[in-house]
Amino acid sequence: MEASLYIVKIGGNVIDSPEQLQRFLRSFASLPGKKILVHGGGKLATELAEQLGIPQQMIDGRRITDAATLKVVTMVYAGYINKQIVAQLQATGCAAVGLSGADGNLLQAHKRHSAVRDYGYAGDVDEVNAGFAGSLLEQGYTLVVAPLSHDRQGQLLNTNADTIAQELAQALAPYYEVQLLYCFEKAGVLRTLSDEQSLIPLLTAADFPLLQAQGVVHAGMLPKLQNAFAALEKGVRKVVIGKWDRLEAMTLQQSGTTIIL
Amino acid sequence: MEASLYIVKIGGNVIDSPEQLQRFLRSFASLPGKKILVHGGGKLATELAEQLGIPQQMIDGRRITDAATLKVVTMVYAGYINKQIVAQLQATGCAAVGLSGADGNLLQAHKRHSAVRDYGYAGDVDEVNAGFAGSLLEQGYTLVVAPLSHDRQGQLLNTNADTIAQELAQALAPYYEVQLLYCFEKAGVLRTLSDEQSLIPLLTAADFPLLQAQGVVHAGMLPKLQNAFAALEKGVRKVVIGKWDRLEAMTLQQSGTTIIL
Repeated sequence: MEASLYIVKIGGNVIDSPEQLQRFLRSFASLPGKKILVHGGGKLATELAEQLGIPQQMIDGRRITDAATLKVVTMVYAGYINKQIVAQLQATGCAAVGLSGADGNLLQAHKRHSAVRDYGYAGDVDEVNAGFAGSLLEQGYTLVVAPLSHDRQGQLLNTNADTIAQELAQALAPYYEVQLLYCFEKAGVLRTLSDEQSLIPLLTAADFPLLQAQGVVHAGMLPKLQNAFAALEKGVRKVVIGKWDRLEAMTLQQSGTTIIL
Repeated sequence: MEASLYIVKIGGNVIDSPEQLQRFLRSFASLPGKKILVHGGGKLATELAEQLGIPQQMIDGRRITDAATLKVVTMVYAGYINKQIVAQLQATGCAAVGLSGADGNLLQAHKRHSAVRDYGYAGDVDEVNAGFAGSLLEQGYTLVVAPLSHDRQGQLLNTNADTIAQELAQALAPYYEVQLLYCFEKAGVLRTLSDEQSLIPLLTAADFPLLQAQGVVHAGMLPKLQNAFAALEKGVRKVVIGKWDRLEAMTLQQSGTTIIL
């Protein structure tokens, strides 16, 4: 049997709260076996950009990354947040190594092309260096990945953390039994967005078209689910979407929405 | 015979100039075999602190690292500078991995104690994880190290880059034939500070007391030389102090001051 690997994505709001982050990192560190944490950026990048007088442009929830903003997110994501997380994990005895996508050529990407608008220094991932990630995992290290990739021509690129988690999961699926865990503020996929009791605990590929037809799954969740099924198609064992403070329960299918083929 | 390992320290002024940095990184990348680059911070951290209205206190050339300043140097050193260097090295085909001292517990330190003054979050290194560094080197990776350590209790610590280079060199000396190369603005150790022609090309432990007695070596250079001899005592093969744009020549004893026992 292949060894199991947890790939966990943690989003912005938890990172913005030192107390929540510490709680989350303790539960992450206590997950057994091999693991990778992919973190988002939180509000810190926006705050720093504001303090420095760099105007921030968000379109459809995506940051338009001009050169000044790229510098800010490189500092905040790969510097402050990544190293804070690594230092805190080390304190729990978890042998963490923090990486951006440039380190070890972990995430090779190209600058996003769009006929409609210029996203600036935003990267779409082309290739994951699974050999590099795997060799560190095999030596017992836990990877902490900041949401930045590079084009291998010297350019860093701002890259969506959800996507990075998915790409890492897919690239490592041939070697490990991968569980991909998306942690956010809600209990999971909900039938009614405002009602945490309306959680869908299990979602299979067979259920999905019906839920879509019924209009049950709300718009913001649709791309996440499409990405989850894409990851499962590529060999990821299961995807769980759930609340950040129920991480262990999520791995045991006792919390969140578990998504399988 | 042990494999050779170059450990190169590059200081602030080169980092502040994108053009000089690119030139330097090309020559660094072309050094044969295993190598580690330790970088300083440059003026970027001071500039960012000024922009953010964080007053900077320097005593005897050392930055007093309060909590706000630690955040700034973590962003600038481990984030912006480290990842810029890694991305640029990757563009030359050099398989670089950027690390702080918290990553892989590379540099475990304690907060500096001083009866005289509070240096804030400044770290003095206690232990180097030579096994982690060595395993990456053996896999063909070049390490790029930012001048930060950690106390293994969750606290990052600002740490002098010269010292980190020396600590890495000493810790890896049992496994490699280590050359420790300090790159700065001058041609090397000079008899007359203003005269680049007064370079001392070779300096041995036997010469050193005489030079000191003659008052030839100026005050700023003394601790550097004492550290160099300490490193040699601990098994480092040679230490070279020279100009950043003569890196290859320094390794061949054709430039700079070569220091041996």
